[in-house]
Amino acid sequence: MPKLRLAIVQTNPTVGDVTSNLNRCFEQVAEAASAGANLVLFAEMVATGYPIEDLATRAAFVVQAQDAVADMAKRLDAAGLGEITVVIGHPALAAQPNNWAIAHNRASVLRHGRILHSYDKHHLPNYGVFDEFRNFVPADELLTFDLAGYRISVVICEDIWQSGGPVAQISQRSTDLTLVLNGSPFEADKDDRRVSLVSALAKSTNSAVAYCNLVGGQDDLVFDGDSLFATATGAIVARGRQFEEDLLLIDFESRNQASLTDSPLNERSATNLDNRWQIWNAIVTGLRDYVEKNGFKSVILGLSGGIDSAVCAALATDALGPHRVFGVSMPSEYSSDHSKSDAHDLAKRLGINIREVAISKGVELFDEQLGLTGLAEENLQARLRGLILMSLSNKEGHLVLTTGNKTELAVGYSTIYGDSVGGFAPIKDVAKTLVWDLARWRNEFALSQGQIAPIPENSISKPPSAELRPGQLDQDSLPEYELLDQLLELYIETRVSETDLIAKGFDRDVVQRVIRLVSIAEWKRRQGAIGPKISAMSYGRDRRMPITNKFK
Amino acid sequence: MPKLRLAIVQTNPTVGDVTSNLNRCFEQVAEAASAGANLVLFAEMVATGYPIEDLATRAAFVVQAQDAVADMAKRLDAAGLGEITVVIGHPALAAQPNNWAIAHNRASVLRHGRILHSYDKHHLPNYGVFDEFRNFVPADELLTFDLAGYRISVVICEDIWQSGGPVAQISQRSTDLTLVLNGSPFEADKDDRRVSLVSALAKSTNSAVAYCNLVGGQDDLVFDGDSLFATATGAIVARGRQFEEDLLLIDFESRNQASLTDSPLNERSATNLDNRWQIWNAIVTGLRDYVEKNGFKSVILGLSGGIDSAVCAALATDALGPHRVFGVSMPSEYSSDHSKSDAHDLAKRLGINIREVAISKGVELFDEQLGLTGLAEENLQARLRGLILMSLSNKEGHLVLTTGNKTELAVGYSTIYGDSVGGFAPIKDVAKTLVWDLARWRNEFALSQGQIAPIPENSISKPPSAELRPGQLDQDSLPEYELLDQLLELYIETRVSETDLIAKGFDRDVVQRVIRLVSIAEWKRRQGAIGPKISAMSYGRDRRMPITNKFK
Repeated sequence: MPKLRLAIVQTNPTVGDVTSNLNRCFEQVAEAASAGANLVLFAEMVATGYPIEDLATRAAFVVQAQDAVADMAKRLDAAGLGEITVVIGHPALAAQPNNWAIAHNRASVLRHGRILHSYDKHHLPNYGVFDEFRNFVPADELLTFDLAGYRISVVICEDIWQSGGPVAQISQRSTDLTLVLNGSPFEADKDDRRVSLVSALAKSTNSAVAYCNLVGGQDDLVFDGDSLFATATGAIVARGRQFEEDLLLIDFESRNQASLTDSPLNERSATNLDNRWQIWNAIVTGLRDYVEKNGFKSVILGLSGGIDSAVCAALATDALGPHRVFGVSMPSEYSSDHSKSDAHDLAKRLGINIREVAISKGVELFDEQLGLTGLAEENLQARLRGLILMSLSNKEGHLVLTTGNKTELAVGYSTIYGDSVGGFAPIKDVAKTLVWDLARWRNEFALSQGQIAPIPENSISKPPSAELRPGQLDQDSLPEYELLDQLLELYIETRVSETDLIAKGFDRDVVQRVIRLVSIAEWKRRQGAIGPKISAMSYGRDRRMPITNKFK
Repeated sequence: MPKLRLAIVQTNPTVGDVTSNLNRCFEQVAEAASAGANLVLFAEMVATGYPIEDLATRAAFVVQAQDAVADMAKRLDAAGLGEITVVIGHPALAAQPNNWAIAHNRASVLRHGRILHSYDKHHLPNYGVFDEFRNFVPADELLTFDLAGYRISVVICEDIWQSGGPVAQISQRSTDLTLVLNGSPFEADKDDRRVSLVSALAKSTNSAVAYCNLVGGQDDLVFDGDSLFATATGAIVARGRQFEEDLLLIDFESRNQASLTDSPLNERSATNLDNRWQIWNAIVTGLRDYVEKNGFKSVILGLSGGIDSAVCAALATDALGPHRVFGVSMPSEYSSDHSKSDAHDLAKRLGINIREVAISKGVELFDEQLGLTGLAEENLQARLRGLILMSLSNKEGHLVLTTGNKTELAVGYSTIYGDSVGGFAPIKDVAKTLVWDLARWRNEFALSQGQIAPIPENSISKPPSAELRPGQLDQDSLPEYELLDQLLELYIETRVSETDLIAKGFDRDVVQRVIRLVSIAEWKRRQGAIGPKISAMSYGRDRRMPITNKFK
């Protein structure tokens, strides 16, 4: 049989921008064609971006996407690309809508100017961040078609993560090559699970597997690409870049014989395999795409001299370049000298803009007008800083970044409408201890590249403090971060109960206090900015808890 | 056959407070028993409150609820109430959990100290505000049991709103009486749909139907009770109160013969049938329960002299009484004289607390420090007011109410971290034109009761203005509210497309501008306070749209 040259294409679409997305896909088909590809595989829902959430329930949107894909088939043919078989993801009206969902999550096969075949997703994930059972109508039938003498089957994402359904028919249909369209968001360690899954699928179905994933940020999700190709023996023979568009060319001879074209296997460097590299780049991607896709020119953030704002500034600089990052130092009478000097040191290392706006007059004014002391006065300081950042945002057009980390968010160690103001929260899903790890890693990485370490050593090593009263330290009101993060991970991510945490040897008072703090902070989290998910359980769509909740 | 005396019991549980909830149920069983009841029907998930959201995925919580129900059966028996058959809703561990959900949404039948039978919900609603397919494992088998010679079947809520499933077996099993446990949130006009549905179910299954609903507020949902009893002819012979706990006693003789005990049919007065009465009381219930269940002593809100804050203050006064309501007038140099006098008039009419805190010094300070003009200065004023309310909340312990209406929320006509600050948004789901209607209705209602009209006529009749610059009117930057609300309802609730709106005769520029405003306000809505749902499509869990979204 003739060889099949398969292109696995990673695309970074923008949700709702069907025209631009399909124009980009068109360019990528042309690119694949000029490299001799016969078959081009795109990711899940690439036509619309993903996830489209309740846009899936608007008929005009679904029809627009569906029509645009049919139109793309015609345009490919008109451009002399009609011989190429293109497999592409998009929504499509369902013949049998239910009382809410009207659309399928579809993969269509284009050739000779027409849509030849379609596959509609069977397993609709509806856990964690996913609401697909809400928004799509499920289907049952595997798609298998013939191309150049090969039997090719098509499924979509969750179909291979669950047992049963169309995947069970792949081997019955003597499939040579299974194409899997994916919109699989990044989580630390998920890449390893995908490799095992794809390899196991290939072996169990005795079929080669091409796994194509989206790239880019969409609100709180980051798609990391990392597309894969496995032969039926389960061997991974090709792997796409992470966090970047990519085009993998595979020469396919049989289910057991395939090789990456024109380049050796895209082995990851040791750096890329490092979880911290992956997490850092996931956040950079999420932040960059939020800024670019929403049309912001620049970002602004408060620089306290502490570790959180330093890491956020470094992430923003990596995402956007230093000239698009604006720092503001907002000292009060309780601010230490190092809070100012560390902030300026950071700005200098990063090459970003910095200015200083003191808040003491505002504190004085409201203290006097309202008679504030204690916590009310501490919150006042944070809110005056929030007000300054929002005012500068309104005046100059920057997106405000809020610099709270996951640990603070968990226990409500922040001032709502104060340090929480902003449209995007880069380290929202990064626990405090991981913030320090990332800072150290980023500095080491810079040094290994012969560059200046971006984050001042002092910001990493000094004891964390909100500096809202004289001599205040985080550890005055919270358990040590090492302990706190360990407890939170067990309680939130692993869902260990209070009883079992105490049985594991954690101090009863600490456990009960932390659980109580998590519970009463729910209303603040609900009003928080979105930020990139990097863990298996982020605060956002992953965890949907009632605010009114007396369960302890 | 002996008559069966059925008690349909409306309960107001608190989510997570299993002990208190079941103690309340125990009291209600005792009350029903002393009225001679043999069979007591409670609502869906009454043991835990509803919806429990992702609490359903915490094994310790599910087990606690399940054990507490078994324990309640024993306690009833020990108290000499073991002869009574009690049907009660609670979560229970599923024998076959999936990769996320571990529990069933269950109805258990208690008698003689034991759980005799169980029914697990089949249709798990996963649209609108519901996430049940996310959080529960579905089941397939109808429960039918015998009691005193009658055949009794049990289903739960959504099971009767969808076709197929266990409901299809009701008539095959010669059911005399179908018990339906519900957690059905209030929406304007939904009461009529429930009556039709229950009546039609009775006729189609040739079975009497007892429909029991929860009451009370849980975050953004309000359960309105309004329980029903229909004979197999479809005749409604009993109806529970709206928004209050209630206990309906029905003497059941056969599927066609049943009557309300000891009282005539609970006919609604013309007042209660009025949609405005229902909406007003839904909000009052939602607000009161949010305050009480979360342990707040009082609420605070800005009083601008305008209609929105006036209606919110009147709602809060109806919910909590005047002494628990604290108003703050926060004039600026742009505030009209009537903004202050109308606020004071309102406070006097309601008998609530009021104080004045001027913002001009703060405006001056930041204008000078940051050089603000135009929109940035307008937002500054709103944010200083937000800061004052939050400071007073921190100092004095009030819950802050935010007074934005649905129309403002839709088009983003508000200042984030300014007038949007607060933990609860009473009129979040009330369009501006409906705010006026409610105000007029509430005044008329007061006058009809011989009371003072709570809302100053001037707040109702004057042209709406944010008063953030001299002579500013809402209608300078927004279409007339009559038109705007009509457009928004068609676009959001009815999901009419831009093209179809223009085809209906709406001005193209207005349509496009409004749709654009809705789209770019998504990030603000995402950070908004919760508030009671009163429409078929509230901004909250009902409508989940991406922030990054280029679909127009």
